[in-house]
Amino acid sequence: MSTADPQVFRNCVRALTRDGQHRVWSLIITIFGDLAQKPGERISGAVLSRILGEVGVKPEAMRVALHRLRKDGWIESRRSGRASLYQLSAHGRAQSAAASPRIYARKPPAPDMWHLLLAGSGDSAGARELEHRLVGGDYLQLASNALLGKGPAPSGCDGLFAIEGHAASVPGWLRSRICPEALCTAYRRLKEALEQVCEQLEGAPPLPPLQAATLRVLLVHSWRRVLLRHPDLPEEFFPEGWPGSACREMVNGLLDRLERPALDVLERESMAP
Amino acid sequence: MSTADPQVFRNCVRALTRDGQHRVWSLIITIFGDLAQKPGERISGAVLSRILGEVGVKPEAMRVALHRLRKDGWIESRRSGRASLYQLSAHGRAQSAAASPRIYARKPPAPDMWHLLLAGSGDSAGARELEHRLVGGDYLQLASNALLGKGPAPSGCDGLFAIEGHAASVPGWLRSRICPEALCTAYRRLKEALEQVCEQLEGAPPLPPLQAATLRVLLVHSWRRVLLRHPDLPEEFFPEGWPGSACREMVNGLLDRLERPALDVLERESMAP
Repeated sequence: MSTADPQVFRNCVRALTRDGQHRVWSLIITIFGDLAQKPGERISGAVLSRILGEVGVKPEAMRVALHRLRKDGWIESRRSGRASLYQLSAHGRAQSAAASPRIYARKPPAPDMWHLLLAGSGDSAGARELEHRLVGGDYLQLASNALLGKGPAPSGCDGLFAIEGHAASVPGWLRSRICPEALCTAYRRLKEALEQVCEQLEGAPPLPPLQAATLRVLLVHSWRRVLLRHPDLPEEFFPEGWPGSACREMVNGLLDRLERPALDVLERESMAP
Repeated sequence: MSTADPQVFRNCVRALTRDGQHRVWSLIITIFGDLAQKPGERISGAVLSRILGEVGVKPEAMRVALHRLRKDGWIESRRSGRASLYQLSAHGRAQSAAASPRIYARKPPAPDMWHLLLAGSGDSAGARELEHRLVGGDYLQLASNALLGKGPAPSGCDGLFAIEGHAASVPGWLRSRICPEALCTAYRRLKEALEQVCEQLEGAPPLPPLQAATLRVLLVHSWRRVLLRHPDLPEEFFPEGWPGSACREMVNGLLDRLERPALDVLERESMAP
């Protein structure tokens, strides 16, 4: 097996971080979400600091972020000899598990049925019902009096007009509201970065586990940073030329190539000089 | 064959005219629509005056109404010896033919697909498109930014959000707007009148042709006066207890019983002393 060219890894990191430093606490959440989401899975301070060090995070910044995440109830820590071991709290694990299906989905959602709820003009009870449903997070607001949800219309919306079926036309004004120009630009920048990473890894020998883990974390992090800024909708709800599906495909391809390293492998490698 | 009791006919006329005099020009349109809608079918002034006379219309009022209908291009007249013969103009026939399917329908409409068109907030192009479609007459306005139409969404509504499918909930505010309380009352009054007519005709011998024609005209006229005051929608779009379907059934049953007399039979009877 040929040895990896260290420049390949550095170029990939540069491509995935060129749009400025990622927030450290948010990166740590991604590390746990990708590498140690299952109950009982722990990561040592040494592995965390190696991964974050590759991305340019200073030890002090890591300590501050870990402190904050513990305080906010996202992670828990315990000592094991001279090492600190970290794991997701039950709360952190639940949040992480809730986001994972969207982040790792192989395909965009493709519901075959939608429902639209419409409140009457000046009907304050109907308006309140819409607001209530909007807070639930399962609806896309189309207009002040209209929400769009997936699947058939729920029962108990007697005060609202409801129609359920197929979305026949998604106009430009809605597409640009779902994915405004700034977000489209972020998607295009991500696509460029992913293309560079694909190009670098094309034909290159496998990376050492800590480098593979680091790239996985940067990929997942860059992907979720754009993905979670808009509702989970099929391609027809996005502006013409939106490169979201191409990004999803590349992210999945790269994660397949950069196989998730086992935690004990990472721990052993982090102890090597 | 037993002779008809003249009181039966008088009671039926009274039931169908108790809510005040029908407009004479409108009654004449109903006469032509029911008895002489086909090209070439003509009705003499003598038959018109016998039918209208049964309903209490004075000869002078009939002359004024006929004059107005000729002037407005609804009917045409010609002399034939000492008699005047009247027929629908092409325009009048087209109007009459357009309304007939709704008036004589055996069942309320039951589309299995609807589409809803929604304009964006503050999108003046979308608002204009909705207005344009509303003028076409094929849409029900649900809100200032939302229209409901039958069947699948049309092509060329790119500026609007469109969903097509099944109406899952029709709220009370929409039902009362489609059929306000005053119209519901008119329906209930019609139902009472129709019940009285049914009761009168139950087991009675057939009426003479001019009386049958007169009752037909009053039935169709009373029915279309309420029916055409609201859009053509299935029962689920009407307030609870709306007796529209019961009325439709009784109207159809009575029209079946009061067979449409041939025009030459009416002409012969009108010349009898």
